[in-house]
Amino acid sequence: MRGECVAVFEKRAIVASGEDSLIARYFAPLATDPGAFGLRDDAAVLKAAGEDVVVNTDAIVEGMHFLPDDPADTIARKALRTNLSDLAAKGAEPAGFVLTLALRTQDGAWLSEFARGLGEDIAAYGCPLLGGDTVSTPGPLMISVTAFGRVPDGRIVRRAGAQAGDRIVVTGTIGDAALGLAVLQNRLTVENADALVGRYRVPQPRTALARAVRDHAAASMDVSDGLAGDLAKLCDVSGVSAVIEAANIPLSRPVRALLDAGAIGIETLVAGGDDYEILCTMPEARLPSFMAQAAQAGVPAAVIGAVVAGKAPPRFVDTAGRAIALKRHSYSHF
Amino acid sequence: MRGECVAVFEKRAIVASGEDSLIARYFAPLATDPGAFGLRDDAAVLKAAGEDVVVNTDAIVEGMHFLPDDPADTIARKALRTNLSDLAAKGAEPAGFVLTLALRTQDGAWLSEFARGLGEDIAAYGCPLLGGDTVSTPGPLMISVTAFGRVPDGRIVRRAGAQAGDRIVVTGTIGDAALGLAVLQNRLTVENADALVGRYRVPQPRTALARAVRDHAAASMDVSDGLAGDLAKLCDVSGVSAVIEAANIPLSRPVRALLDAGAIGIETLVAGGDDYEILCTMPEARLPSFMAQAAQAGVPAAVIGAVVAGKAPPRFVDTAGRAIALKRHSYSHF
Repeated sequence: MRGECVAVFEKRAIVASGEDSLIARYFAPLATDPGAFGLRDDAAVLKAAGEDVVVNTDAIVEGMHFLPDDPADTIARKALRTNLSDLAAKGAEPAGFVLTLALRTQDGAWLSEFARGLGEDIAAYGCPLLGGDTVSTPGPLMISVTAFGRVPDGRIVRRAGAQAGDRIVVTGTIGDAALGLAVLQNRLTVENADALVGRYRVPQPRTALARAVRDHAAASMDVSDGLAGDLAKLCDVSGVSAVIEAANIPLSRPVRALLDAGAIGIETLVAGGDDYEILCTMPEARLPSFMAQAAQAGVPAAVIGAVVAGKAPPRFVDTAGRAIALKRHSYSHF
Repeated sequence: MRGECVAVFEKRAIVASGEDSLIARYFAPLATDPGAFGLRDDAAVLKAAGEDVVVNTDAIVEGMHFLPDDPADTIARKALRTNLSDLAAKGAEPAGFVLTLALRTQDGAWLSEFARGLGEDIAAYGCPLLGGDTVSTPGPLMISVTAFGRVPDGRIVRRAGAQAGDRIVVTGTIGDAALGLAVLQNRLTVENADALVGRYRVPQPRTALARAVRDHAAASMDVSDGLAGDLAKLCDVSGVSAVIEAANIPLSRPVRALLDAGAIGIETLVAGGDDYEILCTMPEARLPSFMAQAAQAGVPAAVIGAVVAGKAPPRFVDTAGRAIALKRHSYSHF
């Protein structure tokens, strides 16, 4: 925190004091890991014990990744879970995280709810808070998280690695969160929209599947910017193409109903964001074991297509194998 | 990057494309560490090889920690170096960092200069870029860095650990950066102010002293929010007090001249921020070896006082041992 160092020194000191007491009051109780030193040091220690540390950083910004009216606890959960989703897709178990909060004001009720949501997720995912920084901003609220995971030496699952012939698997359902955002922005009217809105606000990272991904997947990433575009990135870095059978893309019941009724197009689903599902590829021989582990973990998973040779953008086809002309070719922009 | 998922999808795709090409163009060339995967994956790998990973996160915000007119390359350096300063104070060697950039616009000339400065520091400090995230914001420019260091198992030097009888050492000189800020804000006129301004804009992290700190210091932190306040924090968490001989606080020639002329008071120096020097304590017996290592590393270091028993805030005394009544007791606010 820097201000005018002569005239407003007192104010600066009070702001600094405010930052310290803010951390002590709301966040120190969450930092129970011994490596966090109770948030009373400059840095934290992450024990690595010979494993690789997987590092991921993702920031969420008010008005971009969450809405100003979203509840404080869901904002906290989204900030952490978007990172946990990446770790799971890399085959990594959560090891901890640090948090940077850029706040306009110090609203005790808001911070209290934020810390409550964060604390519940820390416990639920076994991902300790190791440190953080709070800064004040006149701009939008922003939460930046850097999360750490552990994988055995050399076992991270990369985007690169998909081979022609691999089957393409996606977890959960696709498109719910994009429709949840549309509902919140009054662009879509749906009865019983809570589930869709919930998917937008609170991602469900597939942490339970990290081990299965590590044991079976050739390439993996999380779907956060739309299935079509993210698949295109995975194919690009792997030097392959893909064919997706659109009918096999897993959809929730309300999303299926909207699609069947013509209220939305397939593009809205495959080019929407915020799914936070795992997209991975593996040889067909690996599928039964992967699917069994997924079922055991309680995570739905579906085969949606295959990796093919070539450099063309992934194609989406209908049940007769005809290419679907996506009105929005998001993936061609990447 | 999230926008309206139906109507402005194309725009969203373009923005996403812009983010990817921004990363590819400006930052991928800096990410030469194999664990960064060329910034073409969701996460990075930090090899730990049985050592502890020290994690530090610090964000800098336009108008708070740097000025809107500061050159882009110095902003990049400050963002990284504030973190390197913390690592050095903890006795840790740099191992890598991730970067979150919140940008208002994508100004190629600015980004190019930013990346140049960052790249030079990456090379100079041997601290590879492992990953990052760019987000767009209507608010102030913000750069959040999470940096990693390595120390042998259990060897991090904490703030807690100062013992009554320890001598208190500070590196470099104190107060230059606070006066540099005052010059930039037209609150102070000094001839040949470049050195002061340089200290404000570009910290000199004491990375070369990490090993000496690890080998000798009982407690350590970096001075970033003012010597008085930071010493008070160190004493508080160590459960001790301190006496500082004000005349022994190392000052640069221009700062000494301003103080002697009565143009500034001692408070401006010990309560100013942005010093990014190391403040540490050690038993007297450790001093000669520490000082020899510091001299060998080319880092000036001075003994400024002693740790004493008690819970009182640190006292600053004159050469006759009389308490100096600091007009601003910043440390009493912490």
